[in-house]
Amino acid sequence: MIYSRDAVGGEMPKSAYFDNSSTTAVAKEVLDEMLPFFTGDYGNPGSIHSMGDSAAKAVSAARKRVASALNCKPSEIIFTSGGTESDNLALTGTVVRSGKKKVITSAIEHSAILETCDLLKSYCYEIALLPVDSNGFVNADDLVDVIDDNTSVVSIMAANNVIGTLQPIAELAEIAHEHDALFHTDAVQAFTKVNIDVVRDGIDLLSVSGHKIHGPKGVGALYAKNGVKISPMMLGGGQEHGLRSSTENVPGIAGLGKAAELTMSTMKDDVKSMSRMRDEVIGEVLKIQGSFLNGPMENRLCNNAHFHFGGIKGMDLVLALSNMGVMASTASACSAGSTVPSHVLTAIGRSTEEALSSVRISLSRYTTQEDIDHFLISLPLALGSCRK
Amino acid sequence: MIYSRDAVGGEMPKSAYFDNSSTTAVAKEVLDEMLPFFTGDYGNPGSIHSMGDSAAKAVSAARKRVASALNCKPSEIIFTSGGTESDNLALTGTVVRSGKKKVITSAIEHSAILETCDLLKSYCYEIALLPVDSNGFVNADDLVDVIDDNTSVVSIMAANNVIGTLQPIAELAEIAHEHDALFHTDAVQAFTKVNIDVVRDGIDLLSVSGHKIHGPKGVGALYAKNGVKISPMMLGGGQEHGLRSSTENVPGIAGLGKAAELTMSTMKDDVKSMSRMRDEVIGEVLKIQGSFLNGPMENRLCNNAHFHFGGIKGMDLVLALSNMGVMASTASACSAGSTVPSHVLTAIGRSTEEALSSVRISLSRYTTQEDIDHFLISLPLALGSCRK
Repeated sequence: MIYSRDAVGGEMPKSAYFDNSSTTAVAKEVLDEMLPFFTGDYGNPGSIHSMGDSAAKAVSAARKRVASALNCKPSEIIFTSGGTESDNLALTGTVVRSGKKKVITSAIEHSAILETCDLLKSYCYEIALLPVDSNGFVNADDLVDVIDDNTSVVSIMAANNVIGTLQPIAELAEIAHEHDALFHTDAVQAFTKVNIDVVRDGIDLLSVSGHKIHGPKGVGALYAKNGVKISPMMLGGGQEHGLRSSTENVPGIAGLGKAAELTMSTMKDDVKSMSRMRDEVIGEVLKIQGSFLNGPMENRLCNNAHFHFGGIKGMDLVLALSNMGVMASTASACSAGSTVPSHVLTAIGRSTEEALSSVRISLSRYTTQEDIDHFLISLPLALGSCRK
Repeated sequence: MIYSRDAVGGEMPKSAYFDNSSTTAVAKEVLDEMLPFFTGDYGNPGSIHSMGDSAAKAVSAARKRVASALNCKPSEIIFTSGGTESDNLALTGTVVRSGKKKVITSAIEHSAILETCDLLKSYCYEIALLPVDSNGFVNADDLVDVIDDNTSVVSIMAANNVIGTLQPIAELAEIAHEHDALFHTDAVQAFTKVNIDVVRDGIDLLSVSGHKIHGPKGVGALYAKNGVKISPMMLGGGQEHGLRSSTENVPGIAGLGKAAELTMSTMKDDVKSMSRMRDEVIGEVLKIQGSFLNGPMENRLCNNAHFHFGGIKGMDLVLALSNMGVMASTASACSAGSTVPSHVLTAIGRSTEEALSSVRISLSRYTTQEDIDHFLISLPLALGSCRK
């Protein structure tokens, strides 16, 4: 069954998609950008004939667009298969080159960071996990306390994927640099929703993903500041300046470039609009007895609202909402089917019961007031059905 | 500029695409299969709502299709970002689990295998490179000589990407198993062009790529026999049974599944047709004075013809052909712009000069007699212009 914004009426159920932190619809403009590279201009950028040249130009144009969105040089962009690979590469690729044995991250990072840290730990790296406060904020003083000259990289996400907390990354980057450590940020959720400037913010490494910004799945990028030493994870043909071998995913890369350009072009208005609707959702939901907000009221990602509700299971609520055409999530898609509480929610002090009774509502630039109304009408009914 | 089979006439130059070993056109049927998952049915397979469920079903259907093409179980397919990742994962993922320290491969493998072996060597693994004869064939006796009970994996490609040599993989797999070693084959070029049956052939691990079989770029798969222990390269959300984390590339995976089904459905006829045209190319080109075939006459990939020519540079010839609308390659796209001779050609005994004067012609199921005629008319003219 296909749900879409265009599929209102007819035999399709009207749906309101509120799972944009899991994945987003590919924008029409993005798909249009990608299409020529599937069946027509399908060359391999490594080929020296004219079709190869044409493909290489498309990759180059996309690289400029992504670089422009981050205020970095095109040569500082490494295209990857997604945010997870970017996160993995940012850590494993740099620590093996630095010779230093400590990695610092936070307790509420994405599993792509935390599991990579677990692996590094098994190779005798020391991993320091910074705690967060009840709203998910990292305290810069905690970083000051644990960082030392043996620290290779500090990795703190720009915006949390579960509760939307925006971290003070510029401040944290400055502390990292005082100890000659690299600063990486997982900006998968923040990219094109938070004003990021890698130069201004002092960021050395930054991960982005295509499918979180209305680009395609299966493509992402790692920004790595010129001069940052990285060992590749993917070995072979020497693509991406030898830092990420494999035939370039030309349509995907072109799509990521277009998605970055498109979402940046209207970012200011989109953030304003999403923030207003998010605040309406938060305000209305908190009127429901037994509802609680997870994450902060200020310094929160414009498209994130996350709640827990007394007396229900989050999974039941998501399924009840789905039956009403509302697509939501419990914590994150990666752990959506899990009965283990989200590590993010336990880190901010939620009990197991509270963590398992939570729902995430994530908006996009395509979310309309009609969607919000659909959700706000459906929620009490869905909660009622769960409590029966 | 867009070249395509449909773009004959008008202002578009008529082109004949003979670089199918570098990459292929996405089949119309494949693109049709992918399209719903970009803008309509765009859910994350990890989400538990109905759109997530729909995406998960698409991934599952594609897994069955790829498994069917290889005669394995769907649970034995791990979707990756491409052939390079599959090759990397097949080696690094298994050797760290086996505890055994020897890896055996051949001198003419793809760089995704050879560079991974270089990395393993730096971690104190012993790498044994089997030589090949003047046609690129591995000799089973050489494997018998070097294999021992400390061998974790033997990796020999099914079909060579430069000169098309088909290796005796079933025989080599049997020898590997006599020493309790795993047998991996890079089947990126062979898949859907050579009759492969992982059960019959005794294969433990096998790499395939989408974009070599009229599927999309940025997606591939690794077949890993049930029971084969693998450590993941990509860590995070636990997708692909924990063996390859990252949000599944749903359109790409659906495309790979369709491409496998499509190309398998007409494989017998396609192989016959490509073989006939390949033989015509070889026969006609060898009539040109100073031309030589690289690779065997028998047991050769149906779509590969590879030559060297006296007195010219391969790169110049590829560019001259490109100007005449013929897309060819020197050795492989990964090394197309290189002035270093292909390791495959030096391994079969070609001199540096011979290796740098070579051209690869690779056909596909869409190659027509008109394309062959276009090439055969253009080649002498292109050679002439290079020799001027």
